[in-house]
Amino acid sequence: MTYTLGWDDGVVVAIDQRVLPHELRWLRLATVEEVIEAITTLAVRGAPAIGLAGAFGVALSAHLHADPAVVRADAERLAKARPTAVNLAWGVRRALGRLDQGAPAVLAEASMMLAEDEATNRTAARLAAGLVLSLTPDRPLRVLTHCNTGRLATAAWGTALGTISDLAGRGLIEEVLVDETRPLLQGARLTAWELAEQGIPHRLLVDSAAAAAMSLGQVDVVLVGADRITARGDVANKIGTYGLAVSAARHRIPFIVVAPESTVDNTLAHGSEIVVEERAAAEVTSFGGTPVAPAGVAVFNPAFDVTPAELVSAVVTERRVWRPNHGAELARRITEALGEGLDLSGVYTDPALFGATAGALAEEFRGSFDAVLGLASGGLLLGAALARHAEVPLVLPGNPVAPGTRVLVVDEVLGDRLGDAAELVWGSGGTVAGFGVLLVESGSGDAEKLAPHKVVALAEVSG
Amino acid sequence: MTYTLGWDDGVVVAIDQRVLPHELRWLRLATVEEVIEAITTLAVRGAPAIGLAGAFGVALSAHLHADPAVVRADAERLAKARPTAVNLAWGVRRALGRLDQGAPAVLAEASMMLAEDEATNRTAARLAAGLVLSLTPDRPLRVLTHCNTGRLATAAWGTALGTISDLAGRGLIEEVLVDETRPLLQGARLTAWELAEQGIPHRLLVDSAAAAAMSLGQVDVVLVGADRITARGDVANKIGTYGLAVSAARHRIPFIVVAPESTVDNTLAHGSEIVVEERAAAEVTSFGGTPVAPAGVAVFNPAFDVTPAELVSAVVTERRVWRPNHGAELARRITEALGEGLDLSGVYTDPALFGATAGALAEEFRGSFDAVLGLASGGLLLGAALARHAEVPLVLPGNPVAPGTRVLVVDEVLGDRLGDAAELVWGSGGTVAGFGVLLVESGSGDAEKLAPHKVVALAEVSG
Repeated sequence: MTYTLGWDDGVVVAIDQRVLPHELRWLRLATVEEVIEAITTLAVRGAPAIGLAGAFGVALSAHLHADPAVVRADAERLAKARPTAVNLAWGVRRALGRLDQGAPAVLAEASMMLAEDEATNRTAARLAAGLVLSLTPDRPLRVLTHCNTGRLATAAWGTALGTISDLAGRGLIEEVLVDETRPLLQGARLTAWELAEQGIPHRLLVDSAAAAAMSLGQVDVVLVGADRITARGDVANKIGTYGLAVSAARHRIPFIVVAPESTVDNTLAHGSEIVVEERAAAEVTSFGGTPVAPAGVAVFNPAFDVTPAELVSAVVTERRVWRPNHGAELARRITEALGEGLDLSGVYTDPALFGATAGALAEEFRGSFDAVLGLASGGLLLGAALARHAEVPLVLPGNPVAPGTRVLVVDEVLGDRLGDAAELVWGSGGTVAGFGVLLVESGSGDAEKLAPHKVVALAEVSG
Repeated sequence: MTYTLGWDDGVVVAIDQRVLPHELRWLRLATVEEVIEAITTLAVRGAPAIGLAGAFGVALSAHLHADPAVVRADAERLAKARPTAVNLAWGVRRALGRLDQGAPAVLAEASMMLAEDEATNRTAARLAAGLVLSLTPDRPLRVLTHCNTGRLATAAWGTALGTISDLAGRGLIEEVLVDETRPLLQGARLTAWELAEQGIPHRLLVDSAAAAAMSLGQVDVVLVGADRITARGDVANKIGTYGLAVSAARHRIPFIVVAPESTVDNTLAHGSEIVVEERAAAEVTSFGGTPVAPAGVAVFNPAFDVTPAELVSAVVTERRVWRPNHGAELARRITEALGEGLDLSGVYTDPALFGATAGALAEEFRGSFDAVLGLASGGLLLGAALARHAEVPLVLPGNPVAPGTRVLVVDEVLGDRLGDAAELVWGSGGTVAGFGVLLVESGSGDAEKLAPHKVVALAEVSG
């Protein structure tokens, strides 16, 4: 079966994640106590997976007990098997909602949740795979991932790992670099096992070697999951995710988060509102029962970290490709900073916004330009920031370019002088990679004049 | 004794690093075979420490054997105990050089090397401690370190960890965050043990949590050692160092390398020339002796990574505080990029150089300014980059500042218009934090006119 848990002939079945990767053992859980024990001992782990285990636990109780009061009591105990797992309570509640229609209806509900989980993951993974292909070179890819986001964590298909499976199914994966993911080693134990099972080439590495792999040019894209995502796109995920995002940004490697829409928590405005939970010291100071640090040493063991939206290329769910640094949000911030008479100095004087605009234009034209020509004076500021972001030379207005250079021409506002600048580029033997501006006046017709060149305006105002 | 290896009554003694942190066991090595075994089994590890073990091994052989041919044969075997350790061959050779003066002279040489090692480390650590204090807030510090650079690795005092000991001795350490340092866990096993022995407060963390600790404001400075340093200041060190440097740069946390001058290899021009050695897969696939990954999994296990000079705040040796992004080197690059008639466009069009100039000025005025005023047009480019680097607002020429704002005024070349701009700042109720420029013409007297304000010019040309 492709599911890692489910229902078989009157019992709940689940892969025992505790004995992986050394042994593939299917648990047959015949009582609610056994289901609870499987959850508390981490035989079943991963937020979606334990939610489903809870739902099947309720189905099992309904199957065994005719008395609804007994089933409700079981459901209550199931929901408390792990204190912080939102999915668990949700899964139990949803299955229990069908109890008045009888045990078969409860089982049908749990089964439907399992099928929905798979459909959600497959849809998100397919969307994410398409995005990955649009952002990476046209050849089999080297992907880096962290923790376990496969069918063990989600019960079917997986999110970030599901995206890798999707790409691998089309022959588009050269290699997956798997972070071992200390302290609990989900990468080494679970992700490596899933990849081996699927025959996808992979190498395991210690978490701290990921940045080196990026610097050595071994990574085309980073794919991770998420525990929780804020309204602005900050991502809470397994400890180590943030450091990966920082390194990926330095190396301009796309950093993509794949997660169900239910992970987005719009009650959280900003990542700083998320309290970082610290877990037991023993996870760090020993492994497999062997102590590896001085007895009694103090430990800092955060369960997860928060990656700010600025470092996230995109969050992909089953519903959407969400690029928090792009499009509407950036346009809103630019128009908000806009002064009288198209005065854009409010953009330049806000370092975060200014950086975001340069980054957005750099990404829109990624790989298509060798130099940036910035038109004075706002365009020059923007051009300088963009050139630094893309690590290409800045061309000052009026200066010639080397023949064959692909020049991205940038200015504050879309207008005639972009076309004039383009003629100077052509005059010195260069080519125009496109035009990037902060602002376009709607109805001005300026974008049409520059066709067929690619024109990107980050915001639009009525002229 | 403060040394972790040495000579005692006719035998070589050394702390057995294999059984740390669980047991403090002193080995008494009475034969050259035992010394070799201690080196090959990593009972003694750390480049300086094994060099000294080699020297004492030769002293032991000379003590035991009257025949110089036997001693020379022993020395040859000692030098080969670890294939890649440069220090080992060097230590053996230096001790052997005194053989014609008799066994006591060989022992004296080895003992002197031990004392020199301590003196080198203490001097470098003292210099580094002074630098740390100049770059950090005026209160007990939270330091993050990686791997083991203490007296276990160096035989006495230590480099980065020696710096921490120096600061702790003056009551200036609040806490040390210790990366566990996968795969071999030198941080968890050795550094945590050394800190506990010295009574310095510390917490252990998985390597991937270091970036999160920085983002949570728990780190004032990062201190690491080095295996090898290139002529331009790129640093090869234990895997994971590079990722720390990338995160430290993002959070503007000083990243300081402490190492003996002998680590600097001027035959290497650039870090890209260093070939990254990969070590055995078993280091990653098992943890404290327990297998943690699927059998036969492929592994990427680089022994070290290379941190480019751009990310290094300073390299501190027993001889100097070397800031590869500062001073003479940056001045040389600016004057090299300089065109006719003080044309500095060559600086703006080179993204690496442009970024380095903005970073250098930001660091020179670190913490002393709330906004940057850039004078058109080169100064505006520089000011915009500097404002982004420091994450403060950019003030455009002619615009007022909020009362009380500490404004850093920047321009291309030092001249009268800086003073004029300062008057406008004062006129709107702001204060001038200082003046930063790319270039000053020597003998122009412009710097004197701006006194007593702090003036920083990154390069100087004759007027």
